[in-house]
Amino acid sequence: MGKTMLNKYRFFDPDKTIRDIAYNLYLNVKDLPIISPHGHVDPRLLAKNKPFPDPTELIIIPDHYLFRMLYSQGIPMQSLGIPTVDGTEVERDHKKIWQIFADNFYLFRGTPTGMWLEHELAEVFCIQEKLNSQNAMNIYDSIQEQLQSKEFLPRVLFNRLNIEVLSTTDGASDNLEYHKQIKESGWNGRVVPCFRPDAVVNITSKNWKLEIDKLGGISGIEITSYKKYIRAIKARREFFKSMGAVSTDQGVYGTYTHRLSENESEAIFQKALHGNASEEDSRFFTANFLMEMAAMSVEDGLVMQIHPGVFRNYNTEILNKFGLDKGADIPVQTEYTKNLHELLNEFGNNKDLTIIVFTLDETTYSRELAPLAGHYPALKLGPAWWFNDSLHGMKRFRECVTETAGIYNTVGFNDDTRAFLSIPARHDLSRRIDSNYLAGMVARHIISTDEALIMGKALAYDLAKKAYKL
Amino acid sequence: MGKTMLNKYRFFDPDKTIRDIAYNLYLNVKDLPIISPHGHVDPRLLAKNKPFPDPTELIIIPDHYLFRMLYSQGIPMQSLGIPTVDGTEVERDHKKIWQIFADNFYLFRGTPTGMWLEHELAEVFCIQEKLNSQNAMNIYDSIQEQLQSKEFLPRVLFNRLNIEVLSTTDGASDNLEYHKQIKESGWNGRVVPCFRPDAVVNITSKNWKLEIDKLGGISGIEITSYKKYIRAIKARREFFKSMGAVSTDQGVYGTYTHRLSENESEAIFQKALHGNASEEDSRFFTANFLMEMAAMSVEDGLVMQIHPGVFRNYNTEILNKFGLDKGADIPVQTEYTKNLHELLNEFGNNKDLTIIVFTLDETTYSRELAPLAGHYPALKLGPAWWFNDSLHGMKRFRECVTETAGIYNTVGFNDDTRAFLSIPARHDLSRRIDSNYLAGMVARHIISTDEALIMGKALAYDLAKKAYKL
Amino acid sequence: MGKTMLNKYRFFDPDKTIRDIAYNLYLNVKDLPIISPHGHVDPRLLAKNKPFPDPTELIIIPDHYLFRMLYSQGIPMQSLGIPTVDGTEVERDHKKIWQIFADNFYLFRGTPTGMWLEHELAEVFCIQEKLNSQNAMNIYDSIQEQLQSKEFLPRVLFNRLNIEVLSTTDGASDNLEYHKQIKESGWNGRVVPCFRPDAVVNITSKNWKLEIDKLGGISGIEITSYKKYIRAIKARREFFKSMGAVSTDQGVYGTYTHRLSENESEAIFQKALHGNASEEDSRFFTANFLMEMAAMSVEDGLVMQIHPGVFRNYNTEILNKFGLDKGADIPVQTEYTKNLHELLNEFGNNKDLTIIVFTLDETTYSRELAPLAGHYPALKLGPAWWFNDSLHGMKRFRECVTETAGIYNTVGFNDDTRAFLSIPARHDLSRRIDSNYLAGMVARHIISTDEALIMGKALAYDLAKKAYKL
Repeated sequence: MGKTMLNKYRFFDPDKTIRDIAYNLYLNVKDLPIISPHGHVDPRLLAKNKPFPDPTELIIIPDHYLFRMLYSQGIPMQSLGIPTVDGTEVERDHKKIWQIFADNFYLFRGTPTGMWLEHELAEVFCIQEKLNSQNAMNIYDSIQEQLQSKEFLPRVLFNRLNIEVLSTTDGASDNLEYHKQIKESGWNGRVVPCFRPDAVVNITSKNWKLEIDKLGGISGIEITSYKKYIRAIKARREFFKSMGAVSTDQGVYGTYTHRLSENESEAIFQKALHGNASEEDSRFFTANFLMEMAAMSVEDGLVMQIHPGVFRNYNTEILNKFGLDKGADIPVQTEYTKNLHELLNEFGNNKDLTIIVFTLDETTYSRELAPLAGHYPALKLGPAWWFNDSLHGMKRFRECVTETAGIYNTVGFNDDTRAFLSIPARHDLSRRIDSNYLAGMVARHIISTDEALIMGKALAYDLAKKAYKL
Repeated sequence: MGKTMLNKYRFFDPDKTIRDIAYNLYLNVKDLPIISPHGHVDPRLLAKNKPFPDPTELIIIPDHYLFRMLYSQGIPMQSLGIPTVDGTEVERDHKKIWQIFADNFYLFRGTPTGMWLEHELAEVFCIQEKLNSQNAMNIYDSIQEQLQSKEFLPRVLFNRLNIEVLSTTDGASDNLEYHKQIKESGWNGRVVPCFRPDAVVNITSKNWKLEIDKLGGISGIEITSYKKYIRAIKARREFFKSMGAVSTDQGVYGTYTHRLSENESEAIFQKALHGNASEEDSRFFTANFLMEMAAMSVEDGLVMQIHPGVFRNYNTEILNKFGLDKGADIPVQTEYTKNLHELLNEFGNNKDLTIIVFTLDETTYSRELAPLAGHYPALKLGPAWWFNDSLHGMKRFRECVTETAGIYNTVGFNDDTRAFLSIPARHDLSRRIDSNYLAGMVARHIISTDEALIMGKALAYDLAKKAYKL
Repeated sequence: MGKTMLNKYRFFDPDKTIRDIAYNLYLNVKDLPIISPHGHVDPRLLAKNKPFPDPTELIIIPDHYLFRMLYSQGIPMQSLGIPTVDGTEVERDHKKIWQIFADNFYLFRGTPTGMWLEHELAEVFCIQEKLNSQNAMNIYDSIQEQLQSKEFLPRVLFNRLNIEVLSTTDGASDNLEYHKQIKESGWNGRVVPCFRPDAVVNITSKNWKLEIDKLGGISGIEITSYKKYIRAIKARREFFKSMGAVSTDQGVYGTYTHRLSENESEAIFQKALHGNASEEDSRFFTANFLMEMAAMSVEDGLVMQIHPGVFRNYNTEILNKFGLDKGADIPVQTEYTKNLHELLNEFGNNKDLTIIVFTLDETTYSRELAPLAGHYPALKLGPAWWFNDSLHGMKRFRECVTETAGIYNTVGFNDDTRAFLSIPARHDLSRRIDSNYLAGMVARHIISTDEALIMGKALAYDLAKKAYKL
């Protein structure tokens, strides 16, 4: 049983030249405030500011990065306490769940999830040992005890973890009540919403009609036409902006962008209202909606984010039993050059607009995304995302993107997490990997140490703050 | 002319920290028995146990990895003794062929073929010099002499090379006579067959009808319908299993999986029997056959392997003159997420089933395969295959796969070779590269040395043994 | 403000073992003459042999690698002096442009453009400081002064930069007057043309008819039929060859190759002459033209180059305002295995033919290109191209290609530049990266130092000379 007193040089290349430069660069950014411009933390957490119930509820149950790995090795989701859609009983003994997790913690060797968890246990909970079968219950009890103290209330942690600003991700029809509660509470933590309209855009989804009703209700606009639909979207963006939002986001399957005529949009919209929209209609509708969103961003100044290329809810059995976001979203090949052509031709030359594109298809880094971002004033590249938000994933991103687009057409780091306590661990990993990347360039005499210090701060703080107008 | 006394640190990163850890990890696995769960060694070799005729016959003529490189530089296949389909004379002077090979051995600098050959010559034949034009005949004679001794009979080598189990790959209608001879000979070496039905699945291949007749003959089932065809397949699987098989394998062009109705399957099958099946029919037939194979594996417990994405016999001239497997099989882009959807939706959640998927399209490692294997209990990833079974290929595989799927959703190493004597060289390279990969993580403080020792053994031995139920 | 006295170890891995071997290998090739078998330097430069006007005209205005990065950060093209199509006024104060460039030189940190520029300023102009806002005018003046001296006349530089041979790239109807002037001037520098017929092949381009007229005019053949068109092409190739050309080149969108019947070719050609050709016609026409070009190369011995996979003039606004080659060409996914099948089946086995293929789609390195080049005698791989002509890009190329195809199926380095003075910088970077790559293999005991010395010379000089028959 090894100690996890985290080594100060962890994640750096062991070559002494690189390691020492990397450590020095890291020291320069390690204590910078955290800018978290894109993520999925529940704002309720910070509105209510209640203690986290227990380690299992805090760490395992909400984190699909984690339980999908256990599931892949044959451990049933029920035994991990993942709630079912129909309310069927699942394991309720959280100590038992924690023990299963500890017994199988070896599965995370070499994974970012493992690296984050070790950081979280060591740095947030001062646990001095690597989690294993033997120490599982002791560690559970230690965390449990700490969670009861005032020091571990969400707002206290927000400050202790040095978070300057945190963006949540919220549906178009969300009333942002928790954001309102936070604002009205007098607490000074900055938590901002992000406008993500997917549910009202996916016209072939079975809930779409319901979502349109919600949108109509909250915007006070009876949505009987495409024009009114767009008017409602604009109204919601305005409301989000008034609540502090600086950005929008869209999860789209493909990246196809295309301007429909008003008649075409209206025709598809009416088909959708009557439940007759086809997949092809949906593709065109989304392609056009991306054009609309860019146009609205030109008007209202919100930064536009696009997260494409995921086959969501791939595992039908898991979807039916456990619902959305259960680790069964699988990337697909994604094309940007041809698909973004209309969008970039119409909006790409606008230097006052910011469109941030993400990808899970690493083949597009050097082939499509870096050449596009290295040319268009409006286009910036989001960091290595999701499965690639990892030591090697971030390294590949920097190595494939920087030589064509430089670092100044990228936007720093996103933690993109649902797991509140993983935020500092994720930023720390990113700061270490970027420091190591820059150190490699210093050691190869490509840049000077002075330049690396400036670049390191840009990657850790400045670029995110600037790109997201925070 | 440099010596090839192989350096003990070969293939490790030269950084002293990494190198020393890697060497230590390597020492821990270097003498573990070899599990060879997938390959193409001819079982006749071990059934007959005759001496290998000469160095050229042993090393050059059967190995398309090797002669394709000579061919690419303008050396005619005939001059290398590769037998022709129509029996046209080819070079028969094996010393002359060996000399050509030695003269051009420099072409293999930096290639795995070169690395394996150096290992084979040094470790199996104790040759102390790198092969070149000058020493070619001396080395030929030295090998030739050794091949005559009892120490170099195939079964003696099997033991000396420390092979615990060797799987061959055999057609559906193979009577497995050599496996039977091996069993009945009383020799204790474990050689098992693997059921590969490609020839009876490719309904548009010109030999298909003939293959169906063979299948009917050997299974004693007159194959007049799809149902009888499936019954014959099941009977053959049962026979293979009785002969020790633990797995099946399929080489498919695409990975599309799709369940046809019984009527649809029957209709296509009848078209095929009448020689009227189209390429589209073939695609659906194979898609459905993959579903059938998974269902049979659920019943009989055989591990299911899929090797997709190769444009076989790409070079028509070479195919016509020299036949199959002559170094002219070229990979094509391969898609898994969409194509495997039906298969994984129906069978992926079954934790008692094992489906091992391979790829020659490295872009799918981080984008599709690791996310799929990191979720589905039934799915495991085969090692870096064929062109990627190499120092950098294996490195890319580990770096792109581990962070999402961990190492425990992979299955250790396959040598996949036709060249019997290259088996230890290939496993040795793999063990060195994995040791170096793990050492990199130890040196970066991601895992402890104790953990690395366990992981190293898993990668070299345990995972293959477990995944293939050996 | 750091000094740019360039470090002798720059670009090498900092690990002392690798670094020292790399430096030693580099010293062995550093002073070899430059073979530049593919590029876009204007032959007028060497025909006229006039002084370069000023630093901005020399370095910024002709180099889209450079100004596209400034544009991506919101700096208008006009303010950089990029001439407009319609003659609209742009910034004419070249000192002011240079200042903007210097103010934003930080954008190039970590990019090859930055690395080349630092080499160019330090090695060609002996500037001892890194360019920045403060020293911009001093550096401008220093370069300006040097440019006036005889030492900086193009032909003097050609010799001083140690260029053995330089290939330009020229349209099918070019009269090669500047090549003629160079020949007739008695100067001994070797500058050869390369036949690039794109303008007369793209039958749907709006200028095609005009280009056909030009081709007819210069070849003295009235091009009224496909046969006459091919006859004119052959005549031009013959003329180019007589002027020293050793190669042809084609920029194609896709790589599809397909033999049309004479009737089919003629039919499409007639449609094109009448302005009725469709995109589909164009695709087939180009596919067939690639077959024709290979057949002509078999006859006349010119090396055939293919540069595919670029969406040219992606940004319509930039195209309309500033014209071609303004940094708005974006790569697209490219497929070789299926598309080159007909070409390779007909011509690939011809060992007297050389077809050199390039790619911007790095996914094809290990999957398609290395397996193809590692088999076909006629096929060789061009070096990492354009966006991938960079430290990491070249590293990826070597690591993905060598293990399957070796180095002897590649053709050394191409600088592919329009910027005359960047030639030595680009070759130097390439020689350093290849030395470092080979050193990594020596340090890992894969090859000996003696072998690395031979391979290093091959990569820096021999392979280009041989492949291009120079």
